[in-house]
Amino acid sequence: MNANAERPGSWRVRAQQLVSYEVRIREHVFRPDRADVLEIGSGRRRFVVVDHAVDLLHGAGIRAYFDHHGVESTVLTVRADESAKDFGTAARIVEALDAFGLARRREPLIVVGGGVLTDIVGLVASLYRRGTPFVRVPTTLVGLVDAGVGAKTGVNFNGHKNRLGTYAPAALTLLDRFFLATLARRHVSNGIAEILKLALIKDARLFDLLEQHGRRLLDEKFQGVTPAGDRAAVAVLHAATEGMLEELEPNLWETELERSVDYGHTFSPTIEMRALPSLLHGEAVCVDMALTTVVAHHRGLLTEHQRDRVFAVMSALELPTWHPLLEPDILAGALQDTVRHRDGQQRVPLPVGIGDVTFVNDITQAELEAATAVQRTLAPSPPLPFP
Amino acid sequence: MNANAERPGSWRVRAQQLVSYEVRIREHVFRPDRADVLEIGSGRRRFVVVDHAVDLLHGAGIRAYFDHHGVESTVLTVRADESAKDFGTAARIVEALDAFGLARRREPLIVVGGGVLTDIVGLVASLYRRGTPFVRVPTTLVGLVDAGVGAKTGVNFNGHKNRLGTYAPAALTLLDRFFLATLARRHVSNGIAEILKLALIKDARLFDLLEQHGRRLLDEKFQGVTPAGDRAAVAVLHAATEGMLEELEPNLWETELERSVDYGHTFSPTIEMRALPSLLHGEAVCVDMALTTVVAHHRGLLTEHQRDRVFAVMSALELPTWHPLLEPDILAGALQDTVRHRDGQQRVPLPVGIGDVTFVNDITQAELEAATAVQRTLAPSPPLPFP
Ligand SMILES: NC(=O)c1ccc[n+]([C@@H]2O[C@H](COP(=O)([O-])OP(=O)(O)OC[C@H]3O[C@@H](n4cnc5c(N)ncnc54)[C@H](O)[C@@H]3O)[C@@H](O)[C@H]2O)c1
Ligand SMILES: NC(=O)c1ccc[n+]([C@@H]2O[C@H](COP(=O)([O-])OP(=O)(O)OC[C@H]3O[C@@H](n4cnc5c(N)ncnc54)[C@H](O)[C@@H]3O)[C@@H](O)[C@H]2O)c1
Ligand SMILES: [Zn+2]
Ligand SMILES: [Zn+2]
Repeated sequence: MNANAERPGSWRVRAQQLVSYEVRIREHVFRPDRADVLEIGSGRRRFVVVDHAVDLLHGAGIRAYFDHHGVESTVLTVRADESAKDFGTAARIVEALDAFGLARRREPLIVVGGGVLTDIVGLVASLYRRGTPFVRVPTTLVGLVDAGVGAKTGVNFNGHKNRLGTYAPAALTLLDRFFLATLARRHVSNGIAEILKLALIKDARLFDLLEQHGRRLLDEKFQGVTPAGDRAAVAVLHAATEGMLEELEPNLWETELERSVDYGHTFSPTIEMRALPSLLHGEAVCVDMALTTVVAHHRGLLTEHQRDRVFAVMSALELPTWHPLLEPDILAGALQDTVRHRDGQQRVPLPVGIGDVTFVNDITQAELEAATAVQRTLAPSPPLPFP
Repeated sequence: MNANAERPGSWRVRAQQLVSYEVRIREHVFRPDRADVLEIGSGRRRFVVVDHAVDLLHGAGIRAYFDHHGVESTVLTVRADESAKDFGTAARIVEALDAFGLARRREPLIVVGGGVLTDIVGLVASLYRRGTPFVRVPTTLVGLVDAGVGAKTGVNFNGHKNRLGTYAPAALTLLDRFFLATLARRHVSNGIAEILKLALIKDARLFDLLEQHGRRLLDEKFQGVTPAGDRAAVAVLHAATEGMLEELEPNLWETELERSVDYGHTFSPTIEMRALPSLLHGEAVCVDMALTTVVAHHRGLLTEHQRDRVFAVMSALELPTWHPLLEPDILAGALQDTVRHRDGQQRVPLPVGIGDVTFVNDITQAELEAATAVQRTLAPSPPLPFP
């Protein structure tokens, strides 16, 4: 702390917070011989928050795991899809923590679920007594490659996507692809959308992998049914995790608002919230990427051939490339909110070829309307039958 | 980011967050010739959250200030006393921010009010789009010397004091004692309780100042009605701010749970919440300090003469040294919750003489009951007439 010599009665406080966390690919984390889940913390009890669907499918194994290790588990089951991603759900978890009587630092929360639940529990963990550690076990593909590996937490509020949140990474994240065995096919596609995002803006090799093996990965749900599918699953998950962490680490608190991993997230937050519950997060991101791929092509950043490859991969992965909400006034409002989120500038990431990115601040309404007109013609017809 | 060579598919992410903020003593901050309030941020508009009582008394001057500087102010008035310190109040502020359309980084929130409001707005600022800067103008004595100078934000939840919160200091805090002119006498006492806390555990000179001038400071509300009162007000506020910042800076995120500034905050959170709204925060802290002063005396950490000086100062400052809630089961429950908050250990700060501190982990129920019996006899009778 410095008292300011020139200005008496003025002090400058300076402090540094070191954040360190581990992300570990691990198979069958709740098999009795695994110790990872209990590696953090001390004491013989844990509070475990489990996604409702995951509990139905995997709950017995999860409970048996803690029993086997002689750890008393209090399991709270939470219905957690996008429409439940609100402060009310967070509040119910807080009440259960109070009833459990959680010790502040040595009894980390354990969360097992998709991106919705890990985002909510991450927020709760960062707010409860101003911060308690947690261990994250993502069970969806979005969780494994995106929501589960970063530092962002949040809930939707007042009709806005993730309007309230914090930066609070799990001390330890365990990525276990075998949870995906029970995931709905559509949610596997949905997760591949975030992998495709990363491929498009930074990893041409990953794009090639998706182009060659994406359909097989979807069919096999990353379970490695065939040797080729297994190799592809391991390679894609490894590349996606590493690429994501490379992007996040130097900018963990988003000091820099030009973020290449924000690709596909310019128009999608508004579209996702407006379409709720019909569009999933990754689907909304894909609709945004389809739009901005056309914009990039119009700007000469991408050849027509590249543009068509991108659309072909999206369709092969059963991801939407068009949505009826792509209307002029909605796009204008979406861009406006994103400009506020990016502190007054567009900072829109656009792909450069396949595997590179640039940021622009001069997207016009006319350009968006021209792009959506083309986008519509490129989308497969009839469109995918969403519920 | 390190890929772990021995364990493939494992990464350790490391990042450092530098936090830097300024606390400035400044008189008449809303006088038109002052520029401090607008020093942070850019653009010609600001969202200002003002305590309801402060708005009635000082609102015209605050609005005129922004007009004078050609800044369009949107003023949200919020009723903010302890019973309104909840997530609902925070949520209403968030809704107003959405309506305002706040840009994420360059339009800092400005908060003008007591510790309740600065804690709530600090929380909102840290959650809104995962963090937006804010400027803090405390208007109570608790705000000036404690709530307004640190990094802690929070709201009460589920019957627990500050159960949800974050660490998020204001980029700039302006300490203007002239707001205290309109503060109720009881709230001035209440603020002096936190100054007394600091004096007892680290600053014997500050204790002497309070012993000599405390009553006059209370009578003059730190306004410097007499030259001696003015000198004392300036000296006490300067020492209190500097002392507080010295304690906070090396432990901003409370990595170390043995905090001397937690003195008086072991039993008080429970007592304050149970007594709500009859006891103020500083009053509850004073009741706790009176109890732990007796405990310290019983342990030989404090002479009888020192103990009696402490009680005499408390009474001269019109602070309570006894409360009917000091019952065995309530004290046991309070200690238990604090032990959870301090991660499984008591870590109770106790005064050593006047101006020094030690931490203990072995306070027993019998010791507390013996101490309250003595405490009761030391308290003035009849007790202060609280509403
Ligand atoms: N924090 C971040 O950085 C970040 C990044 C990307 C996405 N997100 C967030 O993630 C959320 C989307 O996450 P999601 O796609 O995982 O959705 P989700 O959490 O809603 O899960 C999808 C569905 O699958 C079910 N489910 C989960 N695991 C299952 C399993 N193993 N087997 C069967 N069913 C299972 C869930 O109950 C849910 O109905 C969005 O809210 C998005 O904002 C956050
Ligand atoms: N964040 C921290 O580190 C920290 C430290 C200490 C206390 N606190 C918190 O601070 C809160 C107590 O703060 P407080 O004592 O300022 O209470 P407060 O904010 O409730 O203010 C006290 C009363 O005075 C009124 N008021 C405020 N300014 C006034 C003025 N200038 N003139 C007339 N009336 C005025 C308010 O409307 C309120 O009714 C507690 O909730 C406590 O937990 C936080
Ligand atoms: Zn996303
Ligand atoms: Zn306090």
